[in-house]
Amino acid sequence: MTIGTIAFAGARLERDDHLRNDPEALGHLMDWRARLLMLDGLDPVFTPEGTLLWGTLADAHPHSELVFLGLTDGRACFAEVHPSLRGSTAPANPGLWRAMSALSLEELAIWGGARSLVDWHARHRFCARCGAPTKLAKGGWQRSCEAESCGAEHFPRVDPVTIMLVEHEGRLLLGRQPRFPPRRFSALAGFIEPGETIEEAVAREVLEEAGVRVRDVRYIGSQPWPFPSSLMIGCHAVADSAELTIDTTELEEAHWFTREEVAAAMAGDESGRLLAPTPVAIAHHLLKWWLAQ
Amino acid sequence: MTIGTIAFAGARLERDDHLRNDPEALGHLMDWRARLLMLDGLDPVFTPEGTLLWGTLADAHPHSELVFLGLTDGRACFAEVHPSLRGSTAPANPGLWRAMSALSLEELAIWGGARSLVDWHARHRFCARCGAPTKLAKGGWQRSCEAESCGAEHFPRVDPVTIMLVEHEGRLLLGRQPRFPPRRFSALAGFIEPGETIEEAVAREVLEEAGVRVRDVRYIGSQPWPFPSSLMIGCHAVADSAELTIDTTELEEAHWFTREEVAAAMAGDESGRLLAPTPVAIAHHLLKWWLAQ
Repeated sequence: MTIGTIAFAGARLERDDHLRNDPEALGHLMDWRARLLMLDGLDPVFTPEGTLLWGTLADAHPHSELVFLGLTDGRACFAEVHPSLRGSTAPANPGLWRAMSALSLEELAIWGGARSLVDWHARHRFCARCGAPTKLAKGGWQRSCEAESCGAEHFPRVDPVTIMLVEHEGRLLLGRQPRFPPRRFSALAGFIEPGETIEEAVAREVLEEAGVRVRDVRYIGSQPWPFPSSLMIGCHAVADSAELTIDTTELEEAHWFTREEVAAAMAGDESGRLLAPTPVAIAHHLLKWWLAQ
Repeated sequence: MTIGTIAFAGARLERDDHLRNDPEALGHLMDWRARLLMLDGLDPVFTPEGTLLWGTLADAHPHSELVFLGLTDGRACFAEVHPSLRGSTAPANPGLWRAMSALSLEELAIWGGARSLVDWHARHRFCARCGAPTKLAKGGWQRSCEAESCGAEHFPRVDPVTIMLVEHEGRLLLGRQPRFPPRRFSALAGFIEPGETIEEAVAREVLEEAGVRVRDVRYIGSQPWPFPSSLMIGCHAVADSAELTIDTTELEEAHWFTREEVAAAMAGDESGRLLAPTPVAIAHHLLKWWLAQ
């Protein structure tokens, strides 16, 4: 059993990598038929019907860089790296989560992928190797150092993150960060580091954050997460002991929850000690998967 | 069934992230007991017995940056970012593959993780956001922009890559790149992009490289790959058709191989049209997994 349809996945875009490598062919597609995803900073802009607003390339700022997202129905789709975004760190928009929930999954996926790419361009103006300015290349799937002596090529980041359900005798370990709303708990998570497998990263993170040793790590499903550009890798693991030693620099609290508690929270019951994670997050789907086992 | 022990995984190092965040405690560990992994550029240096050579911090160049790898038996282990490496692009060493095969898996893992980190520091001297110089922070698990007006934090990259066995009616699709030795074929592979799940990336890559549509993508196992810093995510997928349209910019050839051909090649038979991938690569373990099904 897999986790099924999930937010930010399922974009119906042909990511045509031949076009990225063929500036002439890509140039031919940049005509009046091409579509421009309208953004407010990095946030989506909505039509009166609540769908994503698309414009044409004529709507782009003359000094914007254009990122080729892919083809839909033979039309090229772009997003713009507006000059005002360059070097910015994209302040969080508190209304974004509500706005996102208005989008269909398919539109959420297109916007999410565009957000990751545009944000990467905004924050990668210079060559990490030599410090010279970089310029957009390959339709936005690369930046190239402008210094002839260097010429380094840089690629958009995707940061793999493990997120795991830890189980012990039928109960699940969930934790909360101080920034969460009261009683909201979620699966433990952490970035995979150089030199680790997915399974090793799961074991290390759970030991670091909760002091629990795990075994039998199983992959369940994955999700692209565009804040800014993570790949969430959902797993299940088994703990031999329920004893917790919480790292309070990472987690405010962590507890073992029964199947009944998880089922009630996932059914929308807000009377218990657990509020379920938002359906946009893979944690929600991992819990659904677990309840269905 | 999982893929079992694999090269570059299984480093017995406690990656103590509290120490990374505690410069004073880390400083206390940087005494005469601390171990320095000796490197020749990015390559391992061997003892007469063929194991990794460790020195002390006194062996480091006075202008080297030091990366904290973790603890073994309570002793802190470091690797140095030698001044000669700064800005370098680590030319391939043709003897490296033979040298690596002399190391135990555990030592290979320690060196592989160190290689990824040291290489990242060597090639990330400047702030991608503003172009100012950066300095090592958090024991080498971060670089910080030195410009007060910016102060951006940068983290080592891990680039997730899908590598997949595509099966159709009992035969496996394997391809070869022009740089491979004659008759060597391996699993198709490609970088996961922003806005994709693992499963979507598998389907896109197989379609792009071989013109084949796949379904039922299953995760099998993962491997850290330190050239320079990939996370190989091994999968299996099913194709409904055997018809191939090869992208010759990516692959020189691709063919469907029978179970008998794969079994013979994996047993070391060099008389057929297939030579098995090296045991260091996850592709080898994926094929072993497949034969055991």
